[in-house]
Amino acid sequence: MSAAERVIVAVDAMGGDHAPEVVLQGVAEALAVDSELVVLLTGPHDVVTPFVASHQRIEAVVTTQVIEMGEHPANAVRSKNDSSIVVGCRLVKDGRAAAFFSAGSTGACMAAATLIMGRLSGVSRPAIATVIPASDRPCVLLDIGANADVKPENLVQFALMGRAYAQVLLERTEPSIGLLNIGEEPTKGSMLAQEAHSLMAANVPGFTGNVEGRDIPLGTVDVVVTDGFTGNVALKLLEGLSKTLLGQVKAAMTESALNTIAAAVLQPSLKRLKDRLDPDMYGGAPLLGVKGVCIIGHGSSSARAIRSGVLVSARVARAGLPAMIERSVAELQAEQGTLSPGVANV
Amino acid sequence: MSAAERVIVAVDAMGGDHAPEVVLQGVAEALAVDSELVVLLTGPHDVVTPFVASHQRIEAVVTTQVIEMGEHPANAVRSKNDSSIVVGCRLVKDGRAAAFFSAGSTGACMAAATLIMGRLSGVSRPAIATVIPASDRPCVLLDIGANADVKPENLVQFALMGRAYAQVLLERTEPSIGLLNIGEEPTKGSMLAQEAHSLMAANVPGFTGNVEGRDIPLGTVDVVVTDGFTGNVALKLLEGLSKTLLGQVKAAMTESALNTIAAAVLQPSLKRLKDRLDPDMYGGAPLLGVKGVCIIGHGSSSARAIRSGVLVSARVARAGLPAMIERSVAELQAEQGTLSPGVANV
Repeated sequence: MSAAERVIVAVDAMGGDHAPEVVLQGVAEALAVDSELVVLLTGPHDVVTPFVASHQRIEAVVTTQVIEMGEHPANAVRSKNDSSIVVGCRLVKDGRAAAFFSAGSTGACMAAATLIMGRLSGVSRPAIATVIPASDRPCVLLDIGANADVKPENLVQFALMGRAYAQVLLERTEPSIGLLNIGEEPTKGSMLAQEAHSLMAANVPGFTGNVEGRDIPLGTVDVVVTDGFTGNVALKLLEGLSKTLLGQVKAAMTESALNTIAAAVLQPSLKRLKDRLDPDMYGGAPLLGVKGVCIIGHGSSSARAIRSGVLVSARVARAGLPAMIERSVAELQAEQGTLSPGVANV
Repeated sequence: MSAAERVIVAVDAMGGDHAPEVVLQGVAEALAVDSELVVLLTGPHDVVTPFVASHQRIEAVVTTQVIEMGEHPANAVRSKNDSSIVVGCRLVKDGRAAAFFSAGSTGACMAAATLIMGRLSGVSRPAIATVIPASDRPCVLLDIGANADVKPENLVQFALMGRAYAQVLLERTEPSIGLLNIGEEPTKGSMLAQEAHSLMAANVPGFTGNVEGRDIPLGTVDVVVTDGFTGNVALKLLEGLSKTLLGQVKAAMTESALNTIAAAVLQPSLKRLKDRLDPDMYGGAPLLGVKGVCIIGHGSSSARAIRSGVLVSARVARAGLPAMIERSVAELQAEQGTLSPGVANV
């Protein structure tokens, strides 16, 4: 599909700490950038109707409920059938939208997408991926929290899903894939990592072996595969340390009046650095392995992050990411001879 | 014991990428700082003998073998009975030294200390700890790699060992202890983390609940407890990201001639920041849970890191860290009513 193809993205107007204002602003910016983007905006009447009236290529889908950040994800999804998240996922399920974007509760988006859109044929555990922007060469990290406990075969599927995402988002034709471990040799690490290493070596195109924690910010490989426990710890550590370190650099720069003047000179260069490290650029974290595109933005998303998230949703939908994933999982299963009937004719 | 008490530390002259030169320099500096420190220097005749002749409070223990960084740890320890690492651990075992310090192979030091010194009564799995210097309030992180797969009860012991280390090294009387997890609620995370949470809540003094990846650089708690897989990934990620980020800040500062001038003004402040973040300050990573003090320096240790490692070894030995750990593990077992005969009279 070409980038100019018309695509419909459902957007949760109520997602994130600064909703609905920043969501509406981000959506308006995305519509202005992508002239073939159509948005279905889910949310309360008083939020979505006036906004839709004043913009083009956007429709209101009025909902009466909102899932709050603190609610139990699965319970909230089951009980709030007319919430902006549940309705957004249903629009994808019903074929009215190609993608759903929300900066709301990660747990609720994950539960809604899995329950409503359903899993792709052959995928046993959907996983959440993100792009780590710390180096000159960003990489995809997954799973970042959907599955705290996994089996080696889950990691193989995560690798295939992350590979497809890196192909689409980072435009790497043959992405290199690494398994996050605590040593380079295949025999290093936990039992999970050791078993996953041998499975991945046999089944994952582009698998280059183990990588270590330091390789994530370096971008040594295009895709770093791990369980959702380690991945979540790593992601939050990256976010926390980037913030702490840049804060300390900033504090050092204002230690004296002379420092403050010197810092003003450096300001534009440091701003560019900060922008390059800004996760907002990559527009949120996709839940890979469900039948449809579901991208979850950070709760603290700015309008720029929302814009980016909506544009990435459109791009990933146009590229047909779910079909790419389903195909690669089916190919693997065909090779392994464990082909299930439902996958046979893909 | 007072800080002025005489203490004997065995030091591996051959440990680290820049051995023996930086080791000898670091030892000389440590001897100059601590007037009650005595060093037993293990290594080849031509390295240790001339150095000992020109310094005070130091004895040569000539060894004929060296364990290289790439060797299989357990095999090397078994086959190289007269190596600087094995002999150093034996000096502690035999009561000739109170501590052993090496910047050599972590695996070999761990294997030698465990095999030769032996485990403390009641400790089922020794663990490696380190101090994370990223925040204004440094914290202890363990395990950073000794145990890739652990049980919940191991994490409880890690907590007690890390607690004792924080008391000695960070001088926190009642350290706060957090379990590294992927959510704050007790029901979040992997099965391991959930079970460990309830065990720790019942048995670990100062346990404050779950902490997340971002809490490590923030120093939210004094001790962060995790398995050796997650801990090693986190540590290497911290090291890698700190290096990457500071490198990027430096690059931004030399983007133009004007930037370079401004950066020169800021240089002293940024140098102080870099020093504060330097892990060298905390002198290496102790293997906690063995009968004796064993501290392992980074392979890339500078003379300053060696000095710091030798001084910390002396300090930890004077504080009687192994006895503190044995006592707290015995107290826990007494409370749990699973007291083994060997621990009964401690």
